[in-house]
Amino acid sequence: MIGFIGGTGPEGRGLALRFVLAGEQVLIGSRDEDRAVGAAASVAGLVSSGTVSGALNEDVARRADLVFVAVPYAAQRETLEAAKDDLAGKIVVEVVAPLAFRKGIASVVPVAEGSAALEAQAILPDSTVVAAFQTISARDLLAPDKTIDADVVVCADDPEAREKVMRLAETISGIRAVNGGALSNACHVEHLTALLLNINRLYRARSAIRIVGI
Amino acid sequence: MIGFIGGTGPEGRGLALRFVLAGEQVLIGSRDEDRAVGAAASVAGLVSSGTVSGALNEDVARRADLVFVAVPYAAQRETLEAAKDDLAGKIVVEVVAPLAFRKGIASVVPVAEGSAALEAQAILPDSTVVAAFQTISARDLLAPDKTIDADVVVCADDPEAREKVMRLAETISGIRAVNGGALSNACHVEHLTALLLNINRLYRARSAIRIVGI
Repeated sequence: MIGFIGGTGPEGRGLALRFVLAGEQVLIGSRDEDRAVGAAASVAGLVSSGTVSGALNEDVARRADLVFVAVPYAAQRETLEAAKDDLAGKIVVEVVAPLAFRKGIASVVPVAEGSAALEAQAILPDSTVVAAFQTISARDLLAPDKTIDADVVVCADDPEAREKVMRLAETISGIRAVNGGALSNACHVEHLTALLLNINRLYRARSAIRIVGI
Repeated sequence: MIGFIGGTGPEGRGLALRFVLAGEQVLIGSRDEDRAVGAAASVAGLVSSGTVSGALNEDVARRADLVFVAVPYAAQRETLEAAKDDLAGKIVVEVVAPLAFRKGIASVVPVAEGSAALEAQAILPDSTVVAAFQTISARDLLAPDKTIDADVVVCADDPEAREKVMRLAETISGIRAVNGGALSNACHVEHLTALLLNINRLYRARSAIRIVGI
């Protein structure tokens, strides 16, 4: 079962929707159980079949085999510290990019550990953090009829966990997973997220990337 | 006339070659005139016609209308300070990414100004810095028969200068220019350069990006 901690925002719901469409069982978490149940119901309303339910973050961390973190960066530390024990031994997929916005322009907030992903790994020393999906538009994910046309760069220090998340990413139609190497490379992908958001604003579009030549 | 300061490395020679192929007059610069002349001769040897010559960096800065900076980051400050007066009033295209390598893995060196591009603008307050081409493989540029398949993200605070460099980029066959917004966004592109180099290493390839959805 795939779980989402802080999964009620658009990115969490969007990925949840796509994994439900791919046939996965999905559990959406929140600090507020009603919100989690509401988010799960909204995802369920977009598909004709599939299994998606809502629960408290702590239940998601305990019950899911693989847990996505889709909170805003400002909530990451508190959320992960609360879930730390339940996430031990599991793969944690970090979707977070540490962004700030000023006059609509996205920038990357400095993170002491070097990136949101490395911070997550520092908070969760007994989990295997894999960074992925930061660059995929939540609005595209949430439109079930929209074909995704994007690469997902997957960074992790554990090759098996990285491979597992790459295979999982490719269960979403239209996504190709690209091996991004070590978790320390996630900082570059977090910057790419800011770049794409700024390009979106200039082009009034929802952009993504394809890596060509590989 | 397009000039290259520190243009004897692969990225400078590669871009010089492509602009010669596009019909531009090109001047390749170096601190060492013999090296500049040699680099120009090597570019001339790859094309059947066109105008490319070599000169000291200071002559390039003085004579060219638009000047590319293609030095390694470690040489940027010294090179630009020496050329500062001659570059006043001109568009300076910053190709530099501030990279370090450890065991073959590229990372981005912290820059006090926030990026190599912003540092260049700080050193050259009377020039208009435009950041572009950081992500294009020098080896692909240097293979005249290789069709480039890549977007170039162009960042600048001056819309006219950005537009001019975008049009210039698209004179290279296979390149599409993407408006990357303000010069402060160049830091994200510099990170993207590191990411692509690390992907190149993992895939034994020469990668580039396409922005999709715009």
